[in-house]
Amino acid sequence: MTKRIGILMFNEMEELDAVGPWEVFGHWTKNFPEDEYELVNFSREGGVVTCAKGLRVVTEYSYATVPELEVLVYPGGFGTRAHLKDLAQLAWLREQRTKVPMLVSVCTGSLVFASAGLLKGRCATTHWASLDLLAQLDPTIEVCDEERFVDEGDLVTSAGVSAGIDMALHLVRRFVSSERAIQVRRGIQYDPRPPV
Amino acid sequence: MTKRIGILMFNEMEELDAVGPWEVFGHWTKNFPEDEYELVNFSREGGVVTCAKGLRVVTEYSYATVPELEVLVYPGGFGTRAHLKDLAQLAWLREQRTKVPMLVSVCTGSLVFASAGLLKGRCATTHWASLDLLAQLDPTIEVCDEERFVDEGDLVTSAGVSAGIDMALHLVRRFVSSERAIQVRRGIQYDPRPPV
Repeated sequence: MTKRIGILMFNEMEELDAVGPWEVFGHWTKNFPEDEYELVNFSREGGVVTCAKGLRVVTEYSYATVPELEVLVYPGGFGTRAHLKDLAQLAWLREQRTKVPMLVSVCTGSLVFASAGLLKGRCATTHWASLDLLAQLDPTIEVCDEERFVDEGDLVTSAGVSAGIDMALHLVRRFVSSERAIQVRRGIQYDPRPPV
Repeated sequence: MTKRIGILMFNEMEELDAVGPWEVFGHWTKNFPEDEYELVNFSREGGVVTCAKGLRVVTEYSYATVPELEVLVYPGGFGTRAHLKDLAQLAWLREQRTKVPMLVSVCTGSLVFASAGLLKGRCATTHWASLDLLAQLDPTIEVCDEERFVDEGDLVTSAGVSAGIDMALHLVRRFVSSERAIQVRRGIQYDPRPPV
């Protein structure tokens, strides 16, 4: 049976936080349907969200219409600040915790996980500039500041922005095989060589 | 006077080809307005484009309304295949060549440059799987298959998909300074560590 990965989108979400994993998972699921994973995106109300750097995305589903998920990806970005104190959003996220087997964050998405109480006593990471805030939100969190991502099984958190690409390749390896993750890496020619 | 970078978007464009540079340039231009660069996106008709992996983006401008550009970024993806034989698109691109000081491609965007005759006798690159096609489209091109991007001054081409991130950081360095590019790199925590 097909398993579904859903990427949450919201206003002031950081573009690459979502589109890095979207590209990795999209390349994988479109080119290897035999693995039986599907990729969708959704937002609270459905319709258009405006990202942190101004990109506007038409989301596919709303909270009300998104089909059953195996994996929920929560990107970061300035928009997460509002979520930290949004009781409806935090209640929705806690409900997802009871229904979705794996919750995954990129960048400051993990701050919302912390605010919802999902990271109690767990290892986690976030964007380097928010590591202190992560610890403040829940002092029981063991903050891992050296990793690109922290895989705790049912909870996976990533470092800032571009780390979502590394995290997503890791999940392809975990869900299928190293060989498959290498195929995806080659497909998106991910041989990074930062020029500075 | 503010200089403007415009990222072209079109149906079946590869998501990360566009959003990698969008993130780098977006982070830069929003956080360092003193550098006087602005980032926009546009498509032929304006409105919504549907990318290769299904992401739908609402573009800001059309060919008719996009303001004057200093830099035009042409992403790749399956959608470029149709552009290679689209006489109206090729004529539009040749016109841009006369008006826009710098044309930049990511991935198979350079195939469209080649088809429009813009790469005659120039060094260029593309996604690894399209290197042969690039040479076939114009045998006068010196194909550089070892580089993440090839900067020929007024023409910059990039390797596949994720290479657009490296290329964009290079352009920030070129337009401003290494220090600025390092700041942007740190902002998006671009310390890639592919897990496979």
